[in-house]
Amino acid sequence: MNVKIGRRKSHFCTVAFDSEKNSVRLIEQRLLPHQFKIVATKDFRETARAIKDMIVRGAGAIGATAAYGLAQGIRAFEGRHFEKFKRHVEKVYQHLKAARPTAVDPVNAMDQVRAQIEVGENVRECQEIALHAAESFADEDIEHCRQIGELGAPLIRPGMRVLTHCNAGWLAFVDIGSATAPLYAAHAAGRKFHVYCGETRPRSQGATLTAWELAQEGISHQIIADNAAGHLMQRGEVDLVIVGSDRTLGRTGDVANKIGTYTRAVLAQRHGIPFYVAIPLSTIDWNLKSGLEIPIEERHEEEVLGAWGEAKSGKRIYVRVANPGSGARNPGFDVTPGELITGIITPKGIFKPAELWTQRKDLGCAE
Amino acid sequence: MNVKIGRRKSHFCTVAFDSEKNSVRLIEQRLLPHQFKIVATKDFRETARAIKDMIVRGAGAIGATAAYGLAQGIRAFEGRHFEKFKRHVEKVYQHLKAARPTAVDPVNAMDQVRAQIEVGENVRECQEIALHAAESFADEDIEHCRQIGELGAPLIRPGMRVLTHCNAGWLAFVDIGSATAPLYAAHAAGRKFHVYCGETRPRSQGATLTAWELAQEGISHQIIADNAAGHLMQRGEVDLVIVGSDRTLGRTGDVANKIGTYTRAVLAQRHGIPFYVAIPLSTIDWNLKSGLEIPIEERHEEEVLGAWGEAKSGKRIYVRVANPGSGARNPGFDVTPGELITGIITPKGIFKPAELWTQRKDLGCAE
Repeated sequence: MNVKIGRRKSHFCTVAFDSEKNSVRLIEQRLLPHQFKIVATKDFRETARAIKDMIVRGAGAIGATAAYGLAQGIRAFEGRHFEKFKRHVEKVYQHLKAARPTAVDPVNAMDQVRAQIEVGENVRECQEIALHAAESFADEDIEHCRQIGELGAPLIRPGMRVLTHCNAGWLAFVDIGSATAPLYAAHAAGRKFHVYCGETRPRSQGATLTAWELAQEGISHQIIADNAAGHLMQRGEVDLVIVGSDRTLGRTGDVANKIGTYTRAVLAQRHGIPFYVAIPLSTIDWNLKSGLEIPIEERHEEEVLGAWGEAKSGKRIYVRVANPGSGARNPGFDVTPGELITGIITPKGIFKPAELWTQRKDLGCAE
Repeated sequence: MNVKIGRRKSHFCTVAFDSEKNSVRLIEQRLLPHQFKIVATKDFRETARAIKDMIVRGAGAIGATAAYGLAQGIRAFEGRHFEKFKRHVEKVYQHLKAARPTAVDPVNAMDQVRAQIEVGENVRECQEIALHAAESFADEDIEHCRQIGELGAPLIRPGMRVLTHCNAGWLAFVDIGSATAPLYAAHAAGRKFHVYCGETRPRSQGATLTAWELAQEGISHQIIADNAAGHLMQRGEVDLVIVGSDRTLGRTGDVANKIGTYTRAVLAQRHGIPFYVAIPLSTIDWNLKSGLEIPIEERHEEEVLGAWGEAKSGKRIYVRVANPGSGARNPGFDVTPGELITGIITPKGIFKPAELWTQRKDLGCAE
């Protein structure tokens, strides 16, 4: 999507590949919203480190980064020794996989690349196929987000006030985003509407990343404390909720997403406000039978006990907000049961939660 | 309540009066939880400034501060000219009232003092009565909180996990607090339980003030992001919710309190978790017919866009968290309808929301 630099708007993807320099180009997301910077990794180890250190985050974005990182490593192999080459591919794969061991997207993305190079008959051929496969993965990520936007845009009617949570925007994918895709498509179609970005404590991705994205596109928006969502709904000031998902259960439509999503869904149901979840098909888990089986990661308590921000000096620093003697609980995700969800916006159509299972063949369930 | 200073525990009230020095002694709450400091005002103007600048906050605490400030101003009058004295009293009253024009507690408290000095026949007599009246007001505030604690303590059973929101603790009153009173009473009775302090963005009073209070008393507690309350309730990890109130409608039991209270009540109802509100009688409004008539103050957007905390240097600073180009909505309070409230803990008993009106004579309704 667009980034305003001075008076100019330029188009950037979250992840891109420079085939001449054999380098992965990433937006340094840890500096946003206070600074916009592109990082170019010089080899697959640096790419793995970028995933590990969260220069890049978000399901689609780390998938594409891993795919490109694998291609980058494969292309860096010198010589023609095919067996040596195959061992090298395996080493690069394992190294990139270890960068974020709990995430499924890097593995899925790299598996696609690895499966395609199987047909290559020599090193050079495999290197060409790898780049092509990684490019295809990234293009597909964008195309899926575009389809979500096209299908979801009609939900956004003129004058609506839309609540989002966390960042399922273009920074979390290669481009466009999932939850933001309908917003961008409606905006491109000339519709006027207003977005409330839920702050999304403790990491504040709504206040930082989503607000930054919307500001670049010139979409009307305001940040709210997570506590204010219920009040605004009660006073009739929210017409629609759209969020993303980290994992969606194909059997039930239960949705695991950033902590606080469940609360928004409970409030939306009480007030009869439509609650939509936008997802690429890759986030659907066809195995688990209940949302309560999804393990919820407990993150570091420092996130809850303080905040990162820009001081008057312009320096980005951490301040301890909470009482110094006190500790914190910090569950990173929660699970919203399908019964609270109005519709799930996928690249293949908008489905009721229970329909994911009945439509599973069309939605890519291997079973 | 107690404050740990080094290895020693000392008892402090939030507001106290030094009659020898004719000075109001206040805990400087803006420095908490990072620094504990007592401020002594040298005259009624400094006391008014302490209210205005939020050195002291919370309904009961600013009521007592205004009552003491009025006595302080009255006692500073020199001479015996009774008419001049009466004009002076009026001037002090108006000056303190203007310090927090929207709050009702300072006015109610000062009206009590002013009504009592009516019987004084000379300056000296009025000065003595004023001090006595202010002391009585503060003592009554403590006594009401003590009664709330005594009545509410049986709700806290061993092993319970109790969720609070914001700070309706002893720092918001002269001592003990409202929502915290049952916790302190149960703790004093030797019961073991755990408290989740909801962070309470944007001003984080839960993470700062309530956590600080509980730490001083040695009560087991953890801070959670406001987003985590729903998840913990869903997983069966919250047994009881207790909050305070800024205004409670006598006709309906609707409760205005810090933003986010309504959300906790909706979640508690969904999960069948008891939701209690603890209040002194002075917060009951017998006039309004619906919670939606309560005006909701929109506070400064800087609160939502950043956070105050302690930097590594030990300095207390503000950092801008949010995207620099973006604005915020910041409603300070919300309204929880009586239907979501299990019980209202008052100094006169625990009532169902609808019972406030039927019991209004016992609860001090003048009508």
